[in-house]
Amino acid sequence: MSKIITSIKEMQAQSAALRAKGNSIVFVPTMGFLHDGHRALLVAGRKMGSTLVMSIFVNPAQFGPKEDLSAYPRDLDRDLKMAEDEGVDIVFTPSAPDMYPDGFKTFVEVEGLSNTLCGASRPGHFRGVATVVLKLFNLVMPHKALFGKKDFQQIKVIEQMVKDLDLPVEITGVETVREMDGLAMSSRNSYLGPQERTAAICVPKAMEEARKLVDAGEAESRIVIEKVKKIIEKEPLAMIDYIRVCRSDNLEDAPVIDEGSMLFLAVKVGKARLIDNTSLK
Amino acid sequence: MSKIITSIKEMQAQSAALRAKGNSIVFVPTMGFLHDGHRALLVAGRKMGSTLVMSIFVNPAQFGPKEDLSAYPRDLDRDLKMAEDEGVDIVFTPSAPDMYPDGFKTFVEVEGLSNTLCGASRPGHFRGVATVVLKLFNLVMPHKALFGKKDFQQIKVIEQMVKDLDLPVEITGVETVREMDGLAMSSRNSYLGPQERTAAICVPKAMEEARKLVDAGEAESRIVIEKVKKIIEKEPLAMIDYIRVCRSDNLEDAPVIDEGSMLFLAVKVGKARLIDNTSLK
Repeated sequence: MSKIITSIKEMQAQSAALRAKGNSIVFVPTMGFLHDGHRALLVAGRKMGSTLVMSIFVNPAQFGPKEDLSAYPRDLDRDLKMAEDEGVDIVFTPSAPDMYPDGFKTFVEVEGLSNTLCGASRPGHFRGVATVVLKLFNLVMPHKALFGKKDFQQIKVIEQMVKDLDLPVEITGVETVREMDGLAMSSRNSYLGPQERTAAICVPKAMEEARKLVDAGEAESRIVIEKVKKIIEKEPLAMIDYIRVCRSDNLEDAPVIDEGSMLFLAVKVGKARLIDNTSLK
Repeated sequence: MSKIITSIKEMQAQSAALRAKGNSIVFVPTMGFLHDGHRALLVAGRKMGSTLVMSIFVNPAQFGPKEDLSAYPRDLDRDLKMAEDEGVDIVFTPSAPDMYPDGFKTFVEVEGLSNTLCGASRPGHFRGVATVVLKLFNLVMPHKALFGKKDFQQIKVIEQMVKDLDLPVEITGVETVREMDGLAMSSRNSYLGPQERTAAICVPKAMEEARKLVDAGEAESRIVIEKVKKIIEKEPLAMIDYIRVCRSDNLEDAPVIDEGSMLFLAVKVGKARLIDNTSLK
């Protein structure tokens, strides 16, 4: 049985005790409503240390005022079952008032990386992500932490924060897990109705076409973006937020495609905002 | 002999090793050019744990572009002598390029508390303070840390950060140490020429008169501030930055003086910006 800890003080005391006994703590932070993408993080994490901690916390600080905080899907029983199945030792489920008590005033900002791509569409989002991840690191005190590559920008922000603030934790990115038809797994896919679910395939399809184009010799990002745009625009239920080709190291626009170039997309289909990314070379 | 550590990685490894062996680490962060105010921190800290670590780092991130970063006084030999005398185990002297390497992007902001008093006069100052203190905490991993009450607002900002980010460290404030004539000790007092040094006495004198006024029954902050203003203005070499009566818990203006009210002053005398504070009841 995974142990469930709700109290932040108890989590911190437990981690300190585990560390004092020489355990290595591996941490998978989540917002719950787990899918096979999370499972891949747990499977990889289970092999990386002696104690596997997973948190479930839908973090208010990373949602904008008009975003889907209250609608965000939750299913704790099913999540606990997966935790159990994948050998999680501790499931940490703090409450929002414990994480952000009245008078909370402190935020972490990773400049530059936080303001492009999803950060441009969701102001304050990565400030909320960086702040909660730092808090969770201070409570869980992990030696290692795992994040999914679907949220590539999130990993970059966290890696930069870890480096800049000298946090003694090692970050591992895990490959995106996809449905049979290529759609990246996401808790927010549950927002999609049947027609929208079919429409959503335009995202992985456009990414595949982009890779084909580059394989065939195209090196100009402008051309690749135009191609992706056309494919998404053919789908009447899809609304483009952004399509960009950026350097994977600094997330700045890459006009010419090379080994470090990645394609980033954000597309709204119904209530779901789908994001995805792929290397191009 | 105090051990001197320059490398940030070595400091972190050393602290991890000390913690693993069950030591309790006490930390006194400084910007060097030590005086008896720092000595009081070291004396108090020495009694609070098994390993006493003092850092010396003139933090570029807390100086404004027109401030005295390059002029800030330094005397490492004398500082090491005091460290030795007061039983410091480790003196940590990181370099600025190690603390802020190229591409550094992450900052901690404690909202509200950082923008009043000295924060209003020195935009970004407390962002720089919070960021460096968090970095130093992550490198030194102290159980306890000590700060001087002359920088009262700094203590409030750090206490808030520690609470909000769930940092496992206990903050202790130590009383301001004063010269015979009442001037609060400060490394920046070295900027004062002989005439300016005499002029600087107006600050503790005004604080004393304020306390007398309150002792005599005055409860209106406006009247007390007016009195303090008159005393400082009588001194031609002194230029008032701010005079405020604030609540000690949230640093908001306190129109009526009660147990939680404190007087805060910032006064420029020559090149030195002197700050001081006192309880009023």
